[in-house]
Amino acid sequence: MRLGTCYFPEHWDPSEHQRDVDLMVQARLDIVRMGEFAWSRIERESGQFDFDWMDRTLDRMHSAGLEVCLCTPTATPPKWLVDRYPEILPVGPDRQLRDFGSRRHYRFASTVYREQSERITEIVAARWGQHPAVTTWQTDNEYGCHDTTFSYAPDDLRAFKDWCAARYATPDALNRAWGNAFWSQEITDFDQLWLPVGAVTEINPACALAWRRFGSDQVVDFNRSQVELLRTHSPGRRVAHNFMGFFTEFDHHRVAADLDIAAWDSYPLGFTDMSPLPLAQKLEYMRTGHPDIAGFHHDLYRGMGDLWVMEQQPGPVNWAPHNPAPLPGMEHFWIWEAWAHGADVVSFFRWRQAPWAQEQMHAGMLRPDGQPDAAFYAAQRAAQERDQWFPNGVPANVQAPVALVLDYESLWAQEIQPQGASWNPLWEAMRWYRAARESGLTLDVVGPGADLNGYALVLCPASAIVDPARVDQLAAASGRVLLGPRSASKTPELSIPEGLAPGAMTQLMPIKVVRVGSYRSEWSMGCELPDARVVRWREQIETSLTPQALAEDGGGLWYRNGLVDYLAAALDDDGLRRFIADRACEQGLNCEVLAPGERVRVRGAMRWHANSGLAPVEGAQGALGQGQFSITP
Amino acid sequence: MRLGTCYFPEHWDPSEHQRDVDLMVQARLDIVRMGEFAWSRIERESGQFDFDWMDRTLDRMHSAGLEVCLCTPTATPPKWLVDRYPEILPVGPDRQLRDFGSRRHYRFASTVYREQSERITEIVAARWGQHPAVTTWQTDNEYGCHDTTFSYAPDDLRAFKDWCAARYATPDALNRAWGNAFWSQEITDFDQLWLPVGAVTEINPACALAWRRFGSDQVVDFNRSQVELLRTHSPGRRVAHNFMGFFTEFDHHRVAADLDIAAWDSYPLGFTDMSPLPLAQKLEYMRTGHPDIAGFHHDLYRGMGDLWVMEQQPGPVNWAPHNPAPLPGMEHFWIWEAWAHGADVVSFFRWRQAPWAQEQMHAGMLRPDGQPDAAFYAAQRAAQERDQWFPNGVPANVQAPVALVLDYESLWAQEIQPQGASWNPLWEAMRWYRAARESGLTLDVVGPGADLNGYALVLCPASAIVDPARVDQLAAASGRVLLGPRSASKTPELSIPEGLAPGAMTQLMPIKVVRVGSYRSEWSMGCELPDARVVRWREQIETSLTPQALAEDGGGLWYRNGLVDYLAAALDDDGLRRFIADRACEQGLNCEVLAPGERVRVRGAMRWHANSGLAPVEGAQGALGQGQFSITP
Amino acid sequence: MRLGTCYFPEHWDPSEHQRDVDLMVQARLDIVRMGEFAWSRIERESGQFDFDWMDRTLDRMHSAGLEVCLCTPTATPPKWLVDRYPEILPVGPDRQLRDFGSRRHYRFASTVYREQSERITEIVAARWGQHPAVTTWQTDNEYGCHDTTFSYAPDDLRAFKDWCAARYATPDALNRAWGNAFWSQEITDFDQLWLPVGAVTEINPACALAWRRFGSDQVVDFNRSQVELLRTHSPGRRVAHNFMGFFTEFDHHRVAADLDIAAWDSYPLGFTDMSPLPLAQKLEYMRTGHPDIAGFHHDLYRGMGDLWVMEQQPGPVNWAPHNPAPLPGMEHFWIWEAWAHGADVVSFFRWRQAPWAQEQMHAGMLRPDGQPDAAFYAAQRAAQERDQWFPNGVPANVQAPVALVLDYESLWAQEIQPQGASWNPLWEAMRWYRAARESGLTLDVVGPGADLNGYALVLCPASAIVDPARVDQLAAASGRVLLGPRSASKTPELSIPEGLAPGAMTQLMPIKVVRVGSYRSEWSMGCELPDARVVRWREQIETSLTPQALAEDGGGLWYRNGLVDYLAAALDDDGLRRFIADRACEQGLNCEVLAPGERVRVRGAMRWHANSGLAPVEGAQGALGQGQFSITP
Ligand SMILES: [Zn+2]
Ligand SMILES: [Zn+2]
Ligand SMILES: [Zn+2]
Repeated sequence: MRLGTCYFPEHWDPSEHQRDVDLMVQARLDIVRMGEFAWSRIERESGQFDFDWMDRTLDRMHSAGLEVCLCTPTATPPKWLVDRYPEILPVGPDRQLRDFGSRRHYRFASTVYREQSERITEIVAARWGQHPAVTTWQTDNEYGCHDTTFSYAPDDLRAFKDWCAARYATPDALNRAWGNAFWSQEITDFDQLWLPVGAVTEINPACALAWRRFGSDQVVDFNRSQVELLRTHSPGRRVAHNFMGFFTEFDHHRVAADLDIAAWDSYPLGFTDMSPLPLAQKLEYMRTGHPDIAGFHHDLYRGMGDLWVMEQQPGPVNWAPHNPAPLPGMEHFWIWEAWAHGADVVSFFRWRQAPWAQEQMHAGMLRPDGQPDAAFYAAQRAAQERDQWFPNGVPANVQAPVALVLDYESLWAQEIQPQGASWNPLWEAMRWYRAARESGLTLDVVGPGADLNGYALVLCPASAIVDPARVDQLAAASGRVLLGPRSASKTPELSIPEGLAPGAMTQLMPIKVVRVGSYRSEWSMGCELPDARVVRWREQIETSLTPQALAEDGGGLWYRNGLVDYLAAALDDDGLRRFIADRACEQGLNCEVLAPGERVRVRGAMRWHANSGLAPVEGAQGALGQGQFSITP
Repeated sequence: MRLGTCYFPEHWDPSEHQRDVDLMVQARLDIVRMGEFAWSRIERESGQFDFDWMDRTLDRMHSAGLEVCLCTPTATPPKWLVDRYPEILPVGPDRQLRDFGSRRHYRFASTVYREQSERITEIVAARWGQHPAVTTWQTDNEYGCHDTTFSYAPDDLRAFKDWCAARYATPDALNRAWGNAFWSQEITDFDQLWLPVGAVTEINPACALAWRRFGSDQVVDFNRSQVELLRTHSPGRRVAHNFMGFFTEFDHHRVAADLDIAAWDSYPLGFTDMSPLPLAQKLEYMRTGHPDIAGFHHDLYRGMGDLWVMEQQPGPVNWAPHNPAPLPGMEHFWIWEAWAHGADVVSFFRWRQAPWAQEQMHAGMLRPDGQPDAAFYAAQRAAQERDQWFPNGVPANVQAPVALVLDYESLWAQEIQPQGASWNPLWEAMRWYRAARESGLTLDVVGPGADLNGYALVLCPASAIVDPARVDQLAAASGRVLLGPRSASKTPELSIPEGLAPGAMTQLMPIKVVRVGSYRSEWSMGCELPDARVVRWREQIETSLTPQALAEDGGGLWYRNGLVDYLAAALDDDGLRRFIADRACEQGLNCEVLAPGERVRVRGAMRWHANSGLAPVEGAQGALGQGQFSITP
Repeated sequence: MRLGTCYFPEHWDPSEHQRDVDLMVQARLDIVRMGEFAWSRIERESGQFDFDWMDRTLDRMHSAGLEVCLCTPTATPPKWLVDRYPEILPVGPDRQLRDFGSRRHYRFASTVYREQSERITEIVAARWGQHPAVTTWQTDNEYGCHDTTFSYAPDDLRAFKDWCAARYATPDALNRAWGNAFWSQEITDFDQLWLPVGAVTEINPACALAWRRFGSDQVVDFNRSQVELLRTHSPGRRVAHNFMGFFTEFDHHRVAADLDIAAWDSYPLGFTDMSPLPLAQKLEYMRTGHPDIAGFHHDLYRGMGDLWVMEQQPGPVNWAPHNPAPLPGMEHFWIWEAWAHGADVVSFFRWRQAPWAQEQMHAGMLRPDGQPDAAFYAAQRAAQERDQWFPNGVPANVQAPVALVLDYESLWAQEIQPQGASWNPLWEAMRWYRAARESGLTLDVVGPGADLNGYALVLCPASAIVDPARVDQLAAASGRVLLGPRSASKTPELSIPEGLAPGAMTQLMPIKVVRVGSYRSEWSMGCELPDARVVRWREQIETSLTPQALAEDGGGLWYRNGLVDYLAAALDDDGLRRFIADRACEQGLNCEVLAPGERVRVRGAMRWHANSGLAPVEGAQGALGQGQFSITP
């Protein structure tokens, strides 16, 4: 339960650096991230290096007792490098060059850029890797941000062909895996492969899935090549990357497997504004953030490594369609929320608001005029509370009673083939998460290979693609397993399983999904489940099991086989909350019915109780207004 | 009144082929379409042919007594062909290549592709054209699907220049026809012509119309070149093409003139979801289809040749924004609806749902696991009913009492120049069609050159461009002629007629349209016509005729000259229904007021009575619920 | 208070020209604009000129006593010129060529096109510059229309680099001005600069502002090069350009500085349809135009030179999403409205509706069949009224009691960086204008360097960038100055001022804006100001001033320092009207509360009182229905 900030010494006159360090100490910070966009200051022209300014900054930090998380600067190759190697620039799905002028203007699959990335990583790691201030590294910055995971340059096609040749071995194997007999898509040589872009109509979904796997693998490899150099040149340090919110373009479990710390960048207001929430909820949570958005991501990334919030929203930002000022106190609220969800570090982005360039309207811990802003005081206060409330050390993270299983390949399968404009698989997982949280439950979000022992309830909202290992884990789960519609509905090559869905899960749930329908969001249908209506997705089941509940169309809606339950439709928010709460009660978990904006989370001995809604809720020490919380140790 | 399906033997192991044939017989099918996407299986590499699999399949079909409709495979040139002749790929209106990866990746105007099309057509026609199973051919597949009628490659400009030189003879004639003195658009040589794409603002509408005529002509020529080869190499067989719904990119009357069968592909739920219907109607008809969508197209294409439904929706599909499961029984409903509208064949797309590739979520008569699905049983049942109800042969198609005149050039004129975002000429025609059907009338949709003798009522909702022959036919019509607004408002070169609209029709209706206004859909205005309000379009008329009815603005709304009526505005749905019903009554036709989802159609001795709406309606044999119908012989 | 029209003799057979001239005289016109799109008729091929048709037309006009405003024909380079110099074609922000086929297909920064522009300008000026009919010139036509101010060709980058080198002198100065240390954007050579297009994400706002200044400068230079040639070859004539509505792409004050006449093209119905007004208001004013749209632009352009309406909507047009017919009488209404706002000339576009090409559905003073249409009679009637009501000459334009300050750089700053999707700076200025007009006030819209002496009230709705001269003028203003939120919030290089906003205005208003928030349009917050709610934008202020009013969040909303007032938020329409009315009353101005569609304007001795709303209002001579007005001398 520590605090930090993101600092750009290269933005400020050196004469201000010591004042900044002194203020950071005053703000009770522990760790400072630096360097992720500083390439042009480290290497002003090809081979002309300037290390002094960072040397001196690291020394200052160390003297002040601050740890440093140093970054590789590869998210922003400077203009001289782009001019020398224009082939590193990505090409968009519109087949236009994505040019210099902002950031992340590189292709992961570029061998030229891989060399440059390794060259500069080695240089910074060799220079500063053993500096006593440096305890942590961050690789690059927000992989994939601004849709940069994928690029459609000719050289990307070259790499994709190689990747396919490695995966499928023969053209015929690929033809069979993709079903290329359909629409005469067959190839006789891997060199005949194409980029999945610009086709006359829908691309083969199996090709699209291969492309997404390929793209994800490029990120994994790119990151790994930096991690290896950092471990070599900076022994004993821990390595992080800062992931993002609502982002599924690569397999975060696989990238995180090479890291020590799964950090993420938490902007509750921006994410709320851009979410698929209905307008009324966007308005209610406009200045607090929706109560599950930060929590879901905290729980998600905590399932991948030590949890850090590498960038925490410190006030209004600049990049969302609307950028409200947070309610007074939210900066403080977000620190404790992250800690309650198991974060080790909460680091505000950024230290001092820059008065120029793209992010000039993005708040910091200091205002542009150098005066402390709300986040500065929030950090001071949280540090003091922490020391006061937990004098014997911070509570440990312990396993939650409920697990929600999430894997990226299943999300990709449904993003490629939603089969209905109203279907959003990540948001469906968010809805299950919210349903459990609204019942006062504490969750772990776990990856596809996780051990499910010890969980009283395991939620599988959208496991479209599962491998036999997953099935074994679910079969071995000690608690009740809830499977959502579309479970195991696809093979690993995005086709329909031979015996129909739920394919590989049929041993857990002996049913056959013989027909599916997707429906407009405005549609709903009644059913026998309490408080519930069927929405957006409905399956027709063939089975010898007797349904536990029917829908108005007369078909089975809820099936049970031992410890496993299956829902043959999507339920509306209320129905889903009630269904999960009822199953949790069956498992002996203690459910509450919370107010819409009310949330609780338990971290070891600490209970966090918060309210993001307009209406006050009753807390242990009195009413909690909007944006307020209490900590009960 | 026969049944069929679309079969892809190349998708399944040969060991399953005989089982498929046996099941088709069990399903009571008469005819099987094959081969439209099989080029890569017929010619695996340039010049390497494999005919055996189809030989054997044709033999099996023949042995089982099934007829075959064989297709030219030109909708999906294989990758080896595209790699050899990349110039066949189309260029989109964004001036980007439309690349390999799906289907229809060819340019109609490509001379190289024309050669390839003729080469493969000759090969398949020569190989199988005289096989006894083959009774019918389909050319290509769904011409123009996915906006492929038009392409904007340099070679398309070359062809367009030639086309213009042939049409206009001299640059000055073209300048005059297009009004090129406007904005200095004049040319002195056909080589100065441009592609109608990428201009700074609106292109000359006359140029746009020339482009659409040119594009349509390419389709006509492409189709004709296949038809001629088929007739040569496969004498005695009939030739079809499968048209689409809500599709106006080429002149279907002219393409159909070279065919025997005007087939189309009927997907009632997908079309309803994508239609301009208001949300409430989309929800009501989500699982049945709007009651006029299939009917309108049946009647439209029956006006061009023998009517087949070459592809009939067999269950949920994959390509609409939302893909509901049809209400139980709809597969059966749609067969009888098509037969009632005069179809000879109703052929489900497809036989067995493919578990992989783009259409894996598109239902078939068999499920992916090979078990019969709803359409299988629907076919069995319909065949049995047909034999039972019509033991002496199926009722003949006879002329309807009402004609609706529709031509593609008039639609193009209004699509190019809607003069108001709320104006959709094809949908306006649909509204007139619906108005008549809601009054229980049976219609023929007829082309511009049709003989109008014998019709009690002739509806002309949107005849913007008419030639003298049309005027003569209308003048000679034995029944009452209803002209909608915008009638004859344009010359064949898309300019305003010299004496103002209705130009060539002024002899029928001696008025002058001196001003027009287009209005937001949310606007309406009262008028003297019963049940009616003026919507979206209003004309100001100068005439010595006394109006039959005024609008609230004091101007004439309805004019009558002998047997001809003119509406100087668009009417809302209710008003249009009442207006057409009242005119039909004047003509002695028997009008009913049907419920919104209720429809009736008479085919000779057979009366089909159906309900697509939520509320039950009273039928001859009792109440008809949603998705139910009765047949009265 | 004169009348005119736009005439295209090249569109009509010479045999009709004299009839046209005679009818113009009958319509009581004073001046006729010609030639702006006639390049292909003046120079049919390179160097082959045809002057005769225009010679004869000028002679006819002169004989009839009509003045002529002749145009340079540079808005439509003919095809032969484009084929010879394809490098003049602009490139869009999608990096695709904007091709021949309509108009304005040239790049302002093209040196080749600058030569061609000067060549043809010199030719027409030399030929007709001293013709006695020619009293006025118009340069080109509607600079920037269809987003043509900016182009992204390689040659545009070349020009931009030169422009930046001239502005910033050294790469390091540019780096500092733009804050290029951020995201490693630093350059070491101007040749490293980039086009602000196609970047992975947001471009540096300072770079975007430089690009907009550069683009604006190209228009200024292009126009100036024509003006200079016209003044040389056509001495004694006055020079105009026809600006547009709601158009901010270049600095109109700077272009107008080289002109005598600030003309604009007024299409009240089209502008209303395309405006950000709510639907209910679009419907109410669909056939009259919103009551402030024409007025605002009249007042805006009158602040730049002699006011002409070079193109006045004469009936329905063709280019808006919906194109209603104006209410009967509107053509007459718009003439008097323009005169009341100080116009010298109101010139209808166009004389006779052309039956072909892009604008065939755009009404004229004559119908396509040559008969007089509504605008013809409107002109006759207005001329007669003018002569009757003002027998001793038209009233003079005098200074209004209220000034609204507007400058283009401030608009650009907020368009580049709205910081909230609900923020539209020009529309915010319109809202202040409307608020004052709804209180019956008469306004001048003045530019950034205007003398503010004599105004009782000075409105500054959106002066984001101010220079010291502006601050001095505001400080010296004799009346009360109202500053809106975001005032002086940016430096001239689009960064946050060192001491925070209102930066350069802090001496006028000693506050610090320490935090801002932008909010969805659906949000609002109560406050102490009468009738008002806070909407869309809210600032948090640090100051020793005591606020005059608080908002519900407890923060100051209205601050006063001597004669200067500051609003720390946007107010809703009602609140803004009341706030401005109350301040006007404090200044002793006579405010009325007008009906929503009611407006008054005083021009010297003449008072115009009009109603655009559905509900009648009480006028001096009785009720004014929708689209009616009265003139009180
Ligand atoms: Zn970030
Ligand atoms: Zn199809
Ligand atoms: Zn214009």
